[in-house]
Amino acid sequence: MEQVLFWIVPISSLLALLLAWHFYRQMMGESEGTPLMQKIASHVRKGAMSYLKQQYKIVGIVFLCLVILFSIMAYGFNLQNQWVPVAFLTGGFFSGLSGFLGMKTATQASARTANAARNSLNSGLRVAFRSGAVMGLVVVGLGLLDISFWYLVLDYFVPNDPATPTAKLCMITTTMLTFGMGASTQALFARVGGGIYTKAADVGADLVGKVEAGIPEDDPRNPATIADNVGDNVGDVAGMGADLYESYCGSILATAALGAAAYMTSGDVDMQFKAVVAPMLIAAVGIILSIIGIFSVKTKENAKMKDLLNSLSFGTNLSSVLIVGATFLILWLLQIDNWLNIAIAVLIGLLVGIVIGRSTEYYTSQSYAPTRRLSESGTTGPATVIISGIGLGMISTAIPVLAVVVGIILSYWLASGYDLANVSMGLYGIGIAAVGMLSTLGITLATDAYGPIADNAGGNAEMSGLGEEVRRRTDALDSLGNTTAATGKGFAIGSAALTGLALLASYIEEIRIGLSRLGQTALNLGDLTKPIHEASFTDFMNYYDVNLMNPKVLSGMFIGSMMAFLFCGLTMNAVGRAAAHMVEEVRRQFREIKGILTGDAEPDYARCVQISTKGAQREMVFPSLLAIVAPIITGIIFGVPGVIGLLVGGLSSGFVLAIFMANAGGAWDNAKKYVEEGNFGGKGSEVHKATVVGDTVGDPFKDTSGPSLNILIKLMSMVAIVMAGLTVSWSLF
Amino acid sequence: MEQVLFWIVPISSLLALLLAWHFYRQMMGESEGTPLMQKIASHVRKGAMSYLKQQYKIVGIVFLCLVILFSIMAYGFNLQNQWVPVAFLTGGFFSGLSGFLGMKTATQASARTANAARNSLNSGLRVAFRSGAVMGLVVVGLGLLDISFWYLVLDYFVPNDPATPTAKLCMITTTMLTFGMGASTQALFARVGGGIYTKAADVGADLVGKVEAGIPEDDPRNPATIADNVGDNVGDVAGMGADLYESYCGSILATAALGAAAYMTSGDVDMQFKAVVAPMLIAAVGIILSIIGIFSVKTKENAKMKDLLNSLSFGTNLSSVLIVGATFLILWLLQIDNWLNIAIAVLIGLLVGIVIGRSTEYYTSQSYAPTRRLSESGTTGPATVIISGIGLGMISTAIPVLAVVVGIILSYWLASGYDLANVSMGLYGIGIAAVGMLSTLGITLATDAYGPIADNAGGNAEMSGLGEEVRRRTDALDSLGNTTAATGKGFAIGSAALTGLALLASYIEEIRIGLSRLGQTALNLGDLTKPIHEASFTDFMNYYDVNLMNPKVLSGMFIGSMMAFLFCGLTMNAVGRAAAHMVEEVRRQFREIKGILTGDAEPDYARCVQISTKGAQREMVFPSLLAIVAPIITGIIFGVPGVIGLLVGGLSSGFVLAIFMANAGGAWDNAKKYVEEGNFGGKGSEVHKATVVGDTVGDPFKDTSGPSLNILIKLMSMVAIVMAGLTVSWSLF
Repeated sequence: MEQVLFWIVPISSLLALLLAWHFYRQMMGESEGTPLMQKIASHVRKGAMSYLKQQYKIVGIVFLCLVILFSIMAYGFNLQNQWVPVAFLTGGFFSGLSGFLGMKTATQASARTANAARNSLNSGLRVAFRSGAVMGLVVVGLGLLDISFWYLVLDYFVPNDPATPTAKLCMITTTMLTFGMGASTQALFARVGGGIYTKAADVGADLVGKVEAGIPEDDPRNPATIADNVGDNVGDVAGMGADLYESYCGSILATAALGAAAYMTSGDVDMQFKAVVAPMLIAAVGIILSIIGIFSVKTKENAKMKDLLNSLSFGTNLSSVLIVGATFLILWLLQIDNWLNIAIAVLIGLLVGIVIGRSTEYYTSQSYAPTRRLSESGTTGPATVIISGIGLGMISTAIPVLAVVVGIILSYWLASGYDLANVSMGLYGIGIAAVGMLSTLGITLATDAYGPIADNAGGNAEMSGLGEEVRRRTDALDSLGNTTAATGKGFAIGSAALTGLALLASYIEEIRIGLSRLGQTALNLGDLTKPIHEASFTDFMNYYDVNLMNPKVLSGMFIGSMMAFLFCGLTMNAVGRAAAHMVEEVRRQFREIKGILTGDAEPDYARCVQISTKGAQREMVFPSLLAIVAPIITGIIFGVPGVIGLLVGGLSSGFVLAIFMANAGGAWDNAKKYVEEGNFGGKGSEVHKATVVGDTVGDPFKDTSGPSLNILIKLMSMVAIVMAGLTVSWSLF
Repeated sequence: MEQVLFWIVPISSLLALLLAWHFYRQMMGESEGTPLMQKIASHVRKGAMSYLKQQYKIVGIVFLCLVILFSIMAYGFNLQNQWVPVAFLTGGFFSGLSGFLGMKTATQASARTANAARNSLNSGLRVAFRSGAVMGLVVVGLGLLDISFWYLVLDYFVPNDPATPTAKLCMITTTMLTFGMGASTQALFARVGGGIYTKAADVGADLVGKVEAGIPEDDPRNPATIADNVGDNVGDVAGMGADLYESYCGSILATAALGAAAYMTSGDVDMQFKAVVAPMLIAAVGIILSIIGIFSVKTKENAKMKDLLNSLSFGTNLSSVLIVGATFLILWLLQIDNWLNIAIAVLIGLLVGIVIGRSTEYYTSQSYAPTRRLSESGTTGPATVIISGIGLGMISTAIPVLAVVVGIILSYWLASGYDLANVSMGLYGIGIAAVGMLSTLGITLATDAYGPIADNAGGNAEMSGLGEEVRRRTDALDSLGNTTAATGKGFAIGSAALTGLALLASYIEEIRIGLSRLGQTALNLGDLTKPIHEASFTDFMNYYDVNLMNPKVLSGMFIGSMMAFLFCGLTMNAVGRAAAHMVEEVRRQFREIKGILTGDAEPDYARCVQISTKGAQREMVFPSLLAIVAPIITGIIFGVPGVIGLLVGGLSSGFVLAIFMANAGGAWDNAKKYVEEGNFGGKGSEVHKATVVGDTVGDPFKDTSGPSLNILIKLMSMVAIVMAGLTVSWSLF
């Protein structure tokens, strides 16, 4: 039965990719509009592609170095299994491909969306949303394709050991995690590099254009406008694509590894297979239901804003409701142990995601009191806007953290069969909740990814002089996207925390394999000795003394908390530096190229694109390498307890810090918009200027440092997992 | 031998108090200057005292409620020992008294300092520094007096159990920790309330006065000037006094408790007594050496700025060098086990404090590149100043965290006799390092506390129209204080982290006592059973399953990290709200009272004082109560593992967050000063305006939220310790 069910996984992934291809062709069939629109779109496209090429070159070098390192460890010292270098590479490749395809679609779609918006709001939505769906479907399709491909390959090649029949699936699933590390590495570079690029351009364009010269956003007279639009594509589209590819695969792979581990000691091979396949099946069915959801997004001609929102919400809600039902069905069909409770864990995951999304909306939308009060604080100047925004962001961490805590405890408690001592099944439950949260990624990402497309369409409309009405429509689409994106962001942040926990547990599994590879057959636990394949999570915790009074654990935790802050600080400063260069360049052009501001001369857009590209490339390397190096060095000095401390410290601080930064940034953005809607003096008032300062500060918060933290948390775990072979063989203390 | 040595403790504490009295009398003998100076000083004094009265009223109510709760637990349900309610009260009383006496001195000293500065820089320094020394000596004197008093009382009353002779000292030391909770509670209210007061007044005065009306700081035409000066006293003096009283006592008490615990199982009563007395002795000798240091601060008439700095540094360095020598001597005299290694741990504590201090100076002083670059970022406006400052603050967390990690590992490793499994001695080593760091608090606090006095003297000089020269001298004294205060802040932050760890360990001790009180005699550890008085730290960790895969521990950690952010957010917002009221009031006065700006009419100072007082009172209650309630609720829901998770999560995130906030705030302050020194356009330029925004944002960072976090970390541990009896008897999961 379950062998047959498995084939749903590759089939649904191919279905997603086929449909993505179909939507892409459909979108390409639309007109790109006037020659000027085409020209601008081609500028943006060229800029984005040339940036991506540069980025892939640098990431390529990093991957090359890591593959050499892993090959030496695997083939030279037997500290790792032989599949690691190859699996690592494919993860990186597919993650990059997701970003690339998403961006290719987005850059083709923006002018077409603008052109469609000339007809009606509804046509604009159709083009933009279908293009966003390409990205959503590509991410989930490639993700499950990669997973099923590797599963089949490893199932064929990894030998079965009759003495411990459950070892094979453990081996397969932990090896597959390595491709998660490839995806994480790629994603981190994409998020950090893209994030620095987009915000350097955005901050630079705003500071000189809006604040100093007093020209509107996306005005063609601003030399940084094209760079700003390129930035939306490389940051918000390519970066987000790689990021969510990594989250999606990470949660499925970590849960599969936990499923394999849960049945390691029981010897029940059949149930073990079911536990491994369950997360993949939930994801696969999620793809099919996402497709149904995408097709259900239909609007009447001359639909109003509210109808559009309802239509989008209907699509995502439909998918969510269906996935709950489908999960119960799948798990019942699988007859996995404790199936009802595990299905409820999926439901809990979804609910936690929704709670975080609603809380995000409450704290960051101008429809609610917090952001309105933030706008009001602008009446006493920019300093109080910053103070209030930071306060708001910090307070907004409470609900998401409590939601995740409730999610952790309940999903663990249910999956463990109400026995908190049943650690392996409990952790599996947490993983399943994360998979549940991300199962409808196909459609939630579609509603998220079309935002930047609409944003770019607005830029194109502005620069091509399409007039107020078109711009108003693209703005409406963009702001519609912001509302639906809040839920998407909630899912991304929540799943990062749960996946981080699941990866942490997988690390213990990797330790088991690492010790076995070194020839150790038993754990010496005080008065008794346990065969290594029978040792439980708790046994490993006791063996390595991973308790909270161990100075190595505490040291690791301090370092982990510090890493989250240091990483944020480095990326913030990177944006600051890159933006300063952009500001200088824009000022120089205004000064030296006469007639820019009167519209008589064309600014040198290409030079601004170049500055952002160079700045992002230069600045992304150090923080990203730091994330890779920190777990390795911590492992070398403090061993396994230090690494676990590092991961937990990084996870707990990083998660809270990420919410703080995302929500503060979002609230500043919308507080400015609320003033622009005519409140507290409206556009051009002192209050508006004060909120623009907040918005500018918020840009790197919400689009560079905040989202990168989600990946940092998981990448550090992934690195620890891949380097476990080294850590168990040697450490200083 | 050691019984005789103990008497050094009360004697040195009385010595400190006597000397403080002498310095106070000496200062009171100085003239307060012109009638106008006296009038202004009396305004400030009245405002400060009336604030403190209000604050003590509210704190009194909180203490009353807590004492009733503790009495019910102790006398009604036997969940706590009978001394807890009384000990708790004295801790709160003495902590409040330290703040009160420090503030009384400071408000008397400011006009006298201004008057002395009319003669020479040197005379100004003498008055201000001696007044600062009053505060330093009062804090350490009252601290050790309280400790020795309680030690003697409990030694007399607590019965000795011949079966477990080591139990008595454990009982005594853990009871004494309760008075630490009293001190922490008082300190948190003082820091939060005082911090909100001072920054509401400061931000309010700056925003309208400096930015809008363009009048200088401390100008008598600004209605918020008196409130601002009152704020310096209630926040920087009274708040700091209560805070450091708590740190000082907390580190000594926690280390004594760990010392008692370390010899619990060995049954060696003699060595146990030595381990308990050692931290008290180090502190007592530190007092004597601080006094020597204070007297060594002498300057020639007509000394220059550089001579003064050298003279101050000589005093603190002398005390530090002497304390190292004295520690080796004391521990050798005591013949405590492993005495050489423990003495080295004291040295490590001092070194870590110095490294953190140097790093603070590097990142926040305008003599170094980071702050200068921060000033430069003002050339692109306020937004980049904020982005760069946040980046700088986050990056600046790396060195202090690494220093603390090295300190933790080395002091643990040395004290454990190079055996990391010797947990109880290892943790004792961490406590000893914290005591070493704070041992010279008498003089470091003197060099810290005279800063606000000089600042207030400047305010008085400005308002009384004493002229440029006097103001220049008081400014020089103030900025001299900033340099020496950097080291002091390093010691405060570093000791908070180490003390937090020591308190965490004491919590486990309290669990042991709580279980015994419930009648449990043995721990059931899987296959074996251990008598409860023989169980080690690791046994308790295993018994409660406090490992990093336990969902209760993980949930606690997430909540702990969140608590640090939530608490900061609440205090930031409190400052924002209170400042906004102040801004409105100042604007109203400028508008309604004709002739203020021309100097023809006197502003209504009292109304501003009243607004700050009310705002601080209203706003301080919720965040402070949250800190008390969080560990109780976490304990009720998640039991012991959850509480330990909460404390560790709060400690690791809170420590890093505190450094970030303190350093970002300090750097913004000095970046503004650097511009005011004539760089990047100097005073009044656009760059200056941009850095003023940074400085305003930094105010609550460095003077409200940041320092309050240090107390939050310890208060949560203290609450957990005091409520341990409840937590062990019942929890939901």
